[in-house]
Amino acid sequence: MSAVLEAAISEFAAIDSVVARSHEAQAAYAAARHAVRSALLRGLADALERDAAPLIALADEETSLGAGRLNGELARTAFQLRGFADRLDAGIAARIVDNAAVAGAPPAGRPHLTRMFAPLGPVAMFSASNFPFAFSVLGGDTASALAAGCVVIIKPHSGHPELSRRVHALAAGVLREQGLPEGVIGFVDQASREAAVRLVSHPDVGAVAFTGSYQGGVALWKAANARACPIPFYGELGSVNPLVVTPQALAQEVETPAATLAASIALGCGQFCTSPGVIVVRDDGTGTRFVEALARSLAAQRTHAMLTPAMHCGFEKATEHIAAQPGVVTRLAAQAGSAAGHPPTPRLFEIDAQSFVANAALHEEMFGPAALVVRARHDADVLDVLTAVEGTLTVTLWGAEADTAANRALAAVAQRIAGRVLFRGVPTGVAVCDAQQHGGPWPASTQPQTTSVGYAAIERFLRPVALQDAPPWAIDANHGGATV
Amino acid sequence: MSAVLEAAISEFAAIDSVVARSHEAQAAYAAARHAVRSALLRGLADALERDAAPLIALADEETSLGAGRLNGELARTAFQLRGFADRLDAGIAARIVDNAAVAGAPPAGRPHLTRMFAPLGPVAMFSASNFPFAFSVLGGDTASALAAGCVVIIKPHSGHPELSRRVHALAAGVLREQGLPEGVIGFVDQASREAAVRLVSHPDVGAVAFTGSYQGGVALWKAANARACPIPFYGELGSVNPLVVTPQALAQEVETPAATLAASIALGCGQFCTSPGVIVVRDDGTGTRFVEALARSLAAQRTHAMLTPAMHCGFEKATEHIAAQPGVVTRLAAQAGSAAGHPPTPRLFEIDAQSFVANAALHEEMFGPAALVVRARHDADVLDVLTAVEGTLTVTLWGAEADTAANRALAAVAQRIAGRVLFRGVPTGVAVCDAQQHGGPWPASTQPQTTSVGYAAIERFLRPVALQDAPPWAIDANHGGATV
Repeated sequence: MSAVLEAAISEFAAIDSVVARSHEAQAAYAAARHAVRSALLRGLADALERDAAPLIALADEETSLGAGRLNGELARTAFQLRGFADRLDAGIAARIVDNAAVAGAPPAGRPHLTRMFAPLGPVAMFSASNFPFAFSVLGGDTASALAAGCVVIIKPHSGHPELSRRVHALAAGVLREQGLPEGVIGFVDQASREAAVRLVSHPDVGAVAFTGSYQGGVALWKAANARACPIPFYGELGSVNPLVVTPQALAQEVETPAATLAASIALGCGQFCTSPGVIVVRDDGTGTRFVEALARSLAAQRTHAMLTPAMHCGFEKATEHIAAQPGVVTRLAAQAGSAAGHPPTPRLFEIDAQSFVANAALHEEMFGPAALVVRARHDADVLDVLTAVEGTLTVTLWGAEADTAANRALAAVAQRIAGRVLFRGVPTGVAVCDAQQHGGPWPASTQPQTTSVGYAAIERFLRPVALQDAPPWAIDANHGGATV
Repeated sequence: MSAVLEAAISEFAAIDSVVARSHEAQAAYAAARHAVRSALLRGLADALERDAAPLIALADEETSLGAGRLNGELARTAFQLRGFADRLDAGIAARIVDNAAVAGAPPAGRPHLTRMFAPLGPVAMFSASNFPFAFSVLGGDTASALAAGCVVIIKPHSGHPELSRRVHALAAGVLREQGLPEGVIGFVDQASREAAVRLVSHPDVGAVAFTGSYQGGVALWKAANARACPIPFYGELGSVNPLVVTPQALAQEVETPAATLAASIALGCGQFCTSPGVIVVRDDGTGTRFVEALARSLAAQRTHAMLTPAMHCGFEKATEHIAAQPGVVTRLAAQAGSAAGHPPTPRLFEIDAQSFVANAALHEEMFGPAALVVRARHDADVLDVLTAVEGTLTVTLWGAEADTAANRALAAVAQRIAGRVLFRGVPTGVAVCDAQQHGGPWPASTQPQTTSVGYAAIERFLRPVALQDAPPWAIDANHGGATV
């Protein structure tokens, strides 16, 4: 047997064994009182905060994201773990619709029906590169799956392997303290692509959560669909996040909005899924002054090294690809010496609306500190540009607050293509709350009817079940009333 | 150009033109006050009832389902159209989660966020063969899509073409009366398989609803996933609906439960998606007497011709396939002269639990009046049989009402594999109400987190959108406040 084959077999065996432990833990965890789940979530939040200083130092070493940002991210991660715990205690996973029996013939006559929610089973969770805390081992996907009564099997991102191990070890400690089996939070270390496919294809895995690249996500989505029993795949695959700057937004001045936008484009070195990548600006004198200010402000942004050399390389390729498209003008070019491992310099490109609409290559994400300005001659151009984008996490509309027919048309198109529409501020920074929606039509999400941020994220891992003429114990066993 | 190619081109052009009209109607219909939608749903219910007599006569001629059943089905169809209208008036599609802004830094600080629901766009709706009213032109999928603010494009079933045309003509009349564009309810007559794929692949179609065969459904599901922008595909593909007869259920006598079950197996000539197809019976003396009573009672059931000759042929093939599996004993065989066009005779087969579990060929649906009895030696066998089934619309548990460990284990496994778990009665007959869940793990549904019967079905066609710092008009425009 070849060494390669032997290694693959041993890796597959390791995956199978992690899945087996999680599968074994699933039934008891699903049947546990919801207070057991919320105590676990709070214990995980406490553990993160207790070790914040060394975790942040390690995260910064592995990701270059900086202590300030990472401090905020860890705080957010603990906040959302506790937020799910609060909502569990308030009954979010125990929602019941009960319809009493009605005597007589159908359609009005009916039996007693009780609609409730059951966990989908072990969730395979693929960590993101760009949020080493908030979308990783104990991030939003894990928090919402655990809240739903699903155990998780974490595939860490190779961009921060040591941090992932450290956080998983913390989580394992909390499980031990609370007397829960280790399979509640499984961990598949350093899995190859083939092993990742094996995980998604495993018959005992019930759902998948994924945040990452379009190619990686589509490959795993296909694997989930190729199973004998396909399972739900919640993937976030990429987004260009158009930001429309109406003339109204520039009525006072151009410098402040340009500086605000430049900071958002360069935030975290542009490694945000909500980074504004397509900027729609009117093709007039004020618009031109705004673009000039944006280029100046962007050039002045300090960036840091990208998450991995591969991502730096991908960024350079993506920007070169955009620069090479017919009609594209480079407003801010790569500087010499911008090699992998060093901070990339921000880029800014420009194109007219018609050329943008006609060329699908221009609708692709450049993951990193770059944006494409699209110059629109009139309102119809703006609508055409948004329509051409098709699916995106966010659309931001600056200066569209007045109740006019043009702004109503803009809002309507924005809502057709996006999961979140902003009328002020920048799309980077996603609040964790009940009203949040993070997801949009393909490729933003593989399941745009769901969200991966905010407390509605729990719904991804629950399946409705109706009990007909059920005895009380069968109903009680399903909404947090049972003991472990 | 060949005649075949010319016909295909002309058929594709016809589909494109129907989609174009519906796409054109979508924006205005989505923006209409919800009262416009509910008035349409009520108008459609009234129109169906006004023409009930000739519609039922035509339906009976095309489907052989009988006037009694068809009367009930038309009443149910009108009932659910009005039910969705009532819920629209009560705000079902206007649910809003509003989180006020919180001052300060994240994660606690946040902007103003308003989560609401937007329609997914034109819905391609594939009618079922077995419910010429309730799952066809104006059936549940159409009612829920229209309630959600989605226009529909109906692909009628070839089993009742004339009825479909007649009902669509009625619907077109209601649209005219109410001043709505004809594209709100589009109709693709006599589409070939290739044309059906074209419809699902059309860039202006936003979601698909399908009830029908596994093969047809999987082909269209693949087409929906093969698009440049895949779209949600809500398919119901087949279900064996296990029914567990515990010893407790036979403690009094065997004749009455056997007669009840036989009637459910043969109802509508077994052409129900919830028809009980796998009957789990204890391998003891009482169990044997029950199976004998079931065979006698089933033999005495009067059936009618199946919906189409192809379905009759499929039924014969499926039962022959089951009969030929190792270990299967035929308890009730085909009678001579049971050719297509004639009523098929009911069939009953029997196998032991271990052989059932080991042979996946036995887990497949026989669409028609047939069932497979699985004899279980003990409780563990029953759990293994249910686990082997994997995905089903329903599981029925007879005699499992006492609060015992065995019954809790049974209920837990049933809920893992099914969307509805019954503790009394038979699974045929699905009440239309808020608490209903019709859908289960693959292959019962392609999206088991959703239901195709009951008022939660509207959620399939709505996508959440969060508005951030939105002016009041932008929020109002999205929840039924706007005029057409």
